[in-house]
Amino acid sequence: MTRTTLSDDGVTESAENAGNVGNAGNSDNTGNAEDLPGARRPGGRTARNRALVHEAVRAQLVEHGYDSLSVDTVAERSGVHRTTIYRRWRDVGGLLADVLDAARDDDWTPPDTGSLVGDLTAINREVHAALTETRSVTTALIAASFRSERAAAALHDFWDDRYVRCAAVVTRAVERGELAPGTDARRLLVAATAPLYHHVVLLRSTTTALLADQAARDAFLAATAGAFAPQEQ
Amino acid sequence: MTRTTLSDDGVTESAENAGNVGNAGNSDNTGNAEDLPGARRPGGRTARNRALVHEAVRAQLVEHGYDSLSVDTVAERSGVHRTTIYRRWRDVGGLLADVLDAARDDDWTPPDTGSLVGDLTAINREVHAALTETRSVTTALIAASFRSERAAAALHDFWDDRYVRCAAVVTRAVERGELAPGTDARRLLVAATAPLYHHVVLLRSTTTALLADQAARDAFLAATAGAFAPQEQ
Repeated sequence: MTRTTLSDDGVTESAENAGNVGNAGNSDNTGNAEDLPGARRPGGRTARNRALVHEAVRAQLVEHGYDSLSVDTVAERSGVHRTTIYRRWRDVGGLLADVLDAARDDDWTPPDTGSLVGDLTAINREVHAALTETRSVTTALIAASFRSERAAAALHDFWDDRYVRCAAVVTRAVERGELAPGTDARRLLVAATAPLYHHVVLLRSTTTALLADQAARDAFLAATAGAFAPQEQ
Repeated sequence: MTRTTLSDDGVTESAENAGNVGNAGNSDNTGNAEDLPGARRPGGRTARNRALVHEAVRAQLVEHGYDSLSVDTVAERSGVHRTTIYRRWRDVGGLLADVLDAARDDDWTPPDTGSLVGDLTAINREVHAALTETRSVTTALIAASFRSERAAAALHDFWDDRYVRCAAVVTRAVERGELAPGTDARRLLVAATAPLYHHVVLLRSTTTALLADQAARDAFLAATAGAFAPQEQ
């Protein structure tokens, strides 16, 4: 779920994922694109600068970590003037928050496989792929959220947006009769995905894609056994 | 579960939790205890210094964060000479790793309430309390683990130890006939606890103790519905 989380094609240069991360997904990764012929894009200089800056923030973060982020390093890497960056984003917290806010601008919707267990499995595979890919933007942004209050708040909002979108999976399952009406979508989705984050981000365990499937199925079994029910307690 | 996680009585001064965190739980919190009458403890100067240093690391971490930790700040806070600290712990990574290693030296065992759902609920209430208490050592150490490879490795080992101990909960449930033999204890325990870490540590959501009970019950329902089974997939 590169779209559900925060993978970045500009960094990984995976054609498959092109355009996933809001505005920034469309940017070149060629240094000072303002100087390149053909670098102009719809939206003009402002949108172009934003894309270049986001790209630079993510690349810098996964390659050199939070401590390397500054207005100056982002200016150098993006080719956007530091005065412009300072005026618009102010500081590292502002840069990280905007990267995360932009990630909410895409049109991602959860997979529709025709069954609850299928949908949860598809979501979990995307989450697992995003967390475990080389130089994962997602894990880098999570790590940064422990340094920056603004990044933490933006990450919270990002995930909130994703859980709202993913609630469609639960709604469909209720409509198919797989789940009782009133099932708590957020709790079910957290139960399905939390073990992945726990293993990869907190326990730093070596994981395989099997974990994604198991966690999805475990949450599915819990749901059909009556967990996440509304009147509980 | 102050014992299952990493709460610290020296910092919170909660009498209820006294002695929970390995050696360090027994230390005074009065500055340079070497100068105080009656401050000598079993184990002599070395053990006493270790307790004072651990206490200082934890207090400094929860009050001022990772960036404030240094051999000098720990020396000043603990009253232990910086040469001693440097010789024994070397650097901040060594200090954090030893605090975590010491937390594995206690004799904590999981609660035995007589039922699987009761045991999981009791564990989750301890986890939730440790994560959400004011100036939580647990969350401070998790945050530090994103800065220090040695702390991350030590935290991994700490949790590994806790999951091994908590497997007794699953063993007893199998013996009582609540669970099928071969149930994957680690997966069940991660499923029960991960939503708490996810909400508190990653999502930074406001939570209540109800979440602990719900997550325990959800994992229990999944387990009795056949999740965490050995032959799966």
